[in-house]
Amino acid sequence: MSVTAQNLTLLTDLYELTMMQGYFKNPVQETVIFDAFYRVNPCGNGFAIAAGLDQVIDYIKNLHFSDEDVAYLDSLGIFEKDFLEYLRGFHFTGDIYAIPEGTVVFPREPLVKVIAPIMEAQLVETAILTMINHQSLIATKAARVVNAARGDGIMEFGLRRAQGPDAGTYGARAAMIGGCIGTSNVLTGQLFDVPVLGTHAHSWIMSFPDEYTAFKTYAKMYPDACTLLVDTYDTLKSGVPNAIRVFKEMRKDKVLNGRYGIRLDSGDLAYLSKEARKMLDAAGFYDAVISASSDLDEYLIDSLKTQGAKITSWGVGTNLITSKDCPAFGGVYKLAAVKQGDGEFVPKIKLSENTEKITNPGNKTVYRIYEKSNGKLKADLIALVDDKFDESKDLVIFDPQETWKKTHLKGGTYTMKELMVQVFDKGKCVYTSPSVMDIREHCINEQATLWDETRRLVNPHEVYVDLSDRLYKMKTDLLNKMHPEE
Amino acid sequence: MSVTAQNLTLLTDLYELTMMQGYFKNPVQETVIFDAFYRVNPCGNGFAIAAGLDQVIDYIKNLHFSDEDVAYLDSLGIFEKDFLEYLRGFHFTGDIYAIPEGTVVFPREPLVKVIAPIMEAQLVETAILTMINHQSLIATKAARVVNAARGDGIMEFGLRRAQGPDAGTYGARAAMIGGCIGTSNVLTGQLFDVPVLGTHAHSWIMSFPDEYTAFKTYAKMYPDACTLLVDTYDTLKSGVPNAIRVFKEMRKDKVLNGRYGIRLDSGDLAYLSKEARKMLDAAGFYDAVISASSDLDEYLIDSLKTQGAKITSWGVGTNLITSKDCPAFGGVYKLAAVKQGDGEFVPKIKLSENTEKITNPGNKTVYRIYEKSNGKLKADLIALVDDKFDESKDLVIFDPQETWKKTHLKGGTYTMKELMVQVFDKGKCVYTSPSVMDIREHCINEQATLWDETRRLVNPHEVYVDLSDRLYKMKTDLLNKMHPEE
Repeated sequence: MSVTAQNLTLLTDLYELTMMQGYFKNPVQETVIFDAFYRVNPCGNGFAIAAGLDQVIDYIKNLHFSDEDVAYLDSLGIFEKDFLEYLRGFHFTGDIYAIPEGTVVFPREPLVKVIAPIMEAQLVETAILTMINHQSLIATKAARVVNAARGDGIMEFGLRRAQGPDAGTYGARAAMIGGCIGTSNVLTGQLFDVPVLGTHAHSWIMSFPDEYTAFKTYAKMYPDACTLLVDTYDTLKSGVPNAIRVFKEMRKDKVLNGRYGIRLDSGDLAYLSKEARKMLDAAGFYDAVISASSDLDEYLIDSLKTQGAKITSWGVGTNLITSKDCPAFGGVYKLAAVKQGDGEFVPKIKLSENTEKITNPGNKTVYRIYEKSNGKLKADLIALVDDKFDESKDLVIFDPQETWKKTHLKGGTYTMKELMVQVFDKGKCVYTSPSVMDIREHCINEQATLWDETRRLVNPHEVYVDLSDRLYKMKTDLLNKMHPEE
Repeated sequence: MSVTAQNLTLLTDLYELTMMQGYFKNPVQETVIFDAFYRVNPCGNGFAIAAGLDQVIDYIKNLHFSDEDVAYLDSLGIFEKDFLEYLRGFHFTGDIYAIPEGTVVFPREPLVKVIAPIMEAQLVETAILTMINHQSLIATKAARVVNAARGDGIMEFGLRRAQGPDAGTYGARAAMIGGCIGTSNVLTGQLFDVPVLGTHAHSWIMSFPDEYTAFKTYAKMYPDACTLLVDTYDTLKSGVPNAIRVFKEMRKDKVLNGRYGIRLDSGDLAYLSKEARKMLDAAGFYDAVISASSDLDEYLIDSLKTQGAKITSWGVGTNLITSKDCPAFGGVYKLAAVKQGDGEFVPKIKLSENTEKITNPGNKTVYRIYEKSNGKLKADLIALVDDKFDESKDLVIFDPQETWKKTHLKGGTYTMKELMVQVFDKGKCVYTSPSVMDIREHCINEQATLWDETRRLVNPHEVYVDLSDRLYKMKTDLLNKMHPEE
């Protein structure tokens, strides 16, 4: 089976189709530029992790209206025959640029840019947002949880609490991008070639006459990855002693060669892990791993680490797979420029009484500026695609809202990297996604360029995202033109 | 395309498969009973709406390990050849009982009961929970939002903020079950035959030289469902006057025969709707509908209704499709009984230091008790399947935790209805789901049996869920047996 082979063409809001018919019937045959971006980092984080692009690529490649799709739309009674005929031959013919998955990103930066005839660009809005919003959200949440664990491994365990099969499957993919070491979701393992992990549940223990027999049976089957769940009856009085009894027998039989240990799934994890550690150590099982699960999130893991809990492996479920404290990413898709025929793009701006909600006009890209001496991220610069920069020259960047906040970068002390890559060229895919494990590696490297203050769980330092001089001027001119009397 | 034809067999936690192999290799060939239930109503609601069963039915029907699935599992290096051979021939052979979709349910009631060989019952745990948890969550949230709107229509608009395509598509299905009047998601409309709704976005307005032309063009195309989005430039100075100009022209041309009106998508909705209403009424457009969207949820809608906002139609996005304040349902799947060969089922109980988490043992069903005089829901009774009741006789029910809380029901004054129906019989599906619109109707009727105090948004009155005498005795006996010294 292949999730990606699905025809998701009708995965769109009805208004995209009513607007398409409107454009079809009227002489508004423009080429447009739409930007997908977000305004606020989720979960109070200092950054987000871009994810979901590969799903978008599959979606765009498979975009077509089947006979059933057209018949269904016809049945709604609002679409005319000539428009339905047009849909029959529809495919995406535009260009798409995007920031690769696993990249650290910040508010207002275009994550995906669509340059296409207006009808095509409008149709794909909803699905692009659904996919980018969902996976970027979970990748970002995962990065937080991984960060809180200070080097310990995080396992993604949330499938049963995910918002449906996709949310569990693509969510687990995103969690891997964000730094998890494996997932319990077998389908994610199959589809995306990532490690799958898991041992047994309370029902395993309960289906045997006693806990020892359940442990012993499991250990015989899986001596190389033997994590025993110790809280079914009583963690310290029954679970840990029975586990130690089984480990002793394995040691005697010389089969204790792989990863082994216990899993705590309830109770006071700080106390239980310290007591269990003492008991395991006293029996000579110094390398037995203590793993824990039980409604964990980044704050609880951070607190347990601070309390000196003897846990070095963590299973995180509900709070990660749903990003429970912030379950939506808030990405939007806004018109940035329009051109008629072979003309020039005319920049467009969306006004709002809320200054933060005013969009950036024009055909843009994003540059990342690093300090040359240490490779740390200095600032991001949203620029027009035809802006020119020279790293050997001085650069002054300034906050687009509080313009008196200026940063002077001396030529030769910084480097610049363009973040967006071309993904579709005239409807043809020209980009191959790396493997998920390679994206995960990229994401780790990306986060290493951040200052600790930006990675902090609470009140992180905000990274500057400035506008190039020419983009700032374009925006200001447009605003002045639209508010002539004010 | 068909979402339901997908093979989701590997949509499971790895530990289900490692346990399956454990059962396969060891003489634990039992038939078991598992209950899927939840412990706390989501979003502080007084009840939940059961949903997701139809997706579970499709999943169970399609359950099989393809050659690719078996090859993938083989590649993990933890499964033996004879077990993989067994998987090749695997299909579900058990019985499933469930409470039909759209039914009002309460904590601790089995929503789904699986009676099957332990390997089969274990495999299906994760996917059943994923589907029931997700759809029940969104249906319940939708019921809250619909309830807050006091009879106004709620449109589901959240696809772009959903946790992936499934969450958007099945979430919209669940939102319809919970009482929405339509969804923007065209795929949901196609798959589940529910109304799809939508007009145009800000980008439509921005792609025309001016707002009036954009409105006029739209009105010409869609005179029968002409809702104009009025907040792109300035709601009261530009949007509403331009809408009125277009409505006047439509009235003059005698094409103002359908549903028409305006949509507010930002700003102070209470103020703007009152001012817009005055302007529309002054121009004689008394039947113009004012609809609103803008990060709405049940509390905001309730507040706007209380403030006398002149809005009668609501589009709800992010907060509904993600159940933002409570994005997980928390359903669990627990072993309730075990039998060897043709023997009797032996009840099983899961202990916990938290009394609320102790499970109910045995082969159970759920009865709903109504007051005969007014049809209102009196209490639910979790009972053993072989319990006998007689509505003509007196019935004393009591709280299973606070057993002194007793309710005496006089024979002839109450009626009882069994809630669970058989869905699979020895692996064969024996149940046909009603249409989504029929489930929605059932859900409305179900909620009509509740007292207003139970439907309250905040601090609702809790409905009694009691245990039958025989079930209570079975549970107490098991607890006493497991804690002999205490």
